[in-house]
Amino acid sequence: MRIAVLGTGMVGRSIAGRLDELGHDVSVGTRDPEATRVREDAGWFTDRPGIALATFAEAAAGAEVVFNASNGAVSLDVLGQAGADNLAGKIVVDIANPLDFSQGFPPTLFVKDTDSLGEQIQRAFPDARVVKTLNTMNASLMVAPGVLPESTSVFVSGNDADAKATVTGLLQQFGHQDVIDLGDITTARGTEMLLPMWLRLMGVLGTATFNFKIVR
Amino acid sequence: MRIAVLGTGMVGRSIAGRLDELGHDVSVGTRDPEATRVREDAGWFTDRPGIALATFAEAAAGAEVVFNASNGAVSLDVLGQAGADNLAGKIVVDIANPLDFSQGFPPTLFVKDTDSLGEQIQRAFPDARVVKTLNTMNASLMVAPGVLPESTSVFVSGNDADAKATVTGLLQQFGHQDVIDLGDITTARGTEMLLPMWLRLMGVLGTATFNFKIVR
Repeated sequence: MRIAVLGTGMVGRSIAGRLDELGHDVSVGTRDPEATRVREDAGWFTDRPGIALATFAEAAAGAEVVFNASNGAVSLDVLGQAGADNLAGKIVVDIANPLDFSQGFPPTLFVKDTDSLGEQIQRAFPDARVVKTLNTMNASLMVAPGVLPESTSVFVSGNDADAKATVTGLLQQFGHQDVIDLGDITTARGTEMLLPMWLRLMGVLGTATFNFKIVR
Repeated sequence: MRIAVLGTGMVGRSIAGRLDELGHDVSVGTRDPEATRVREDAGWFTDRPGIALATFAEAAAGAEVVFNASNGAVSLDVLGQAGADNLAGKIVVDIANPLDFSQGFPPTLFVKDTDSLGEQIQRAFPDARVVKTLNTMNASLMVAPGVLPESTSVFVSGNDADAKATVTGLLQQFGHQDVIDLGDITTARGTEMLLPMWLRLMGVLGTATFNFKIVR
């Protein structure tokens, strides 16, 4: 598939790198492609010639599926730069979390319980088909859950059943065996509110290589 | 141990019944013991003569460990009726959740993210040794996690290491094999914020017999 990944941080690179490995046609969107290319760590892109580097809008325009891998605090701005027209009808896979670091660590959530970042994005881009997923685990586990000693769970939330089916297919390509469809996009409140627990678990376990498994 | 369970609902009965089975000296605290005894379903107590029925204050006064099995919305009131003097120095095991049903289902949380019910209780009863635990699963799994096909996780949060060790011992008697100490009572924010996810999982799984396992 033609897939855009918005964001060049650890999460964006994990997703883009894995999609490229899997044979998808991947472009990574960034605010300023030339600036990204010349930054010290831009060797990552040089080493992966199959991955195009483009503006947010260019990346989104050519894609069937758009991953929001930006920081939650800037996600609405990033998607706005991608352009509502370029997102219309597209699957937008939102993997960001609404983390607020303004009061230090652990961060709190800037939206929660009665609303969610996933819903904010769906409301801001009503013609996009938003699917919230993968936000409940570390970036490396998102695309390679098999490094854990047993299968764990990943969740999808969204209003469009076909979009969730397509995203579930991608998650299975990543190696996820237990994909739980929570329901409409309001259920993103549930997965986003896992983050405070995730952060505390990371603290006491001393690793980010852990995940939730729903045993039933 | 001499253990008081405050609350006669499903959670209180699950805990009290199991503790009684395990040979502990259990008293259940309720607002009006005579009213509880004559209610239709009070046969539950008649069938368990080893479990005393007492006022909140009487139950707490005689106990070494006090379980708060009341609804989160009334927990501070119930513990107030138990009496700060009767809780001083005692282990208070808080298994309630701050659920707010005023806007319908699913409920929201009346305290979250920057504070928690566990912390509210610890602040209101500074001489008690509050341990938050078990609030992340269904009442029957709290005391019999072995009905699930594999071991799952339970969490403890609290400021007093000895109190957490005692509670961990009780959890192990219940059958819990993976007890994760999250840290001080502020980490109750993490476990209480799992509830929105738990409620949505219950909806899509069609059962409350499921639990979180932290795979690492």
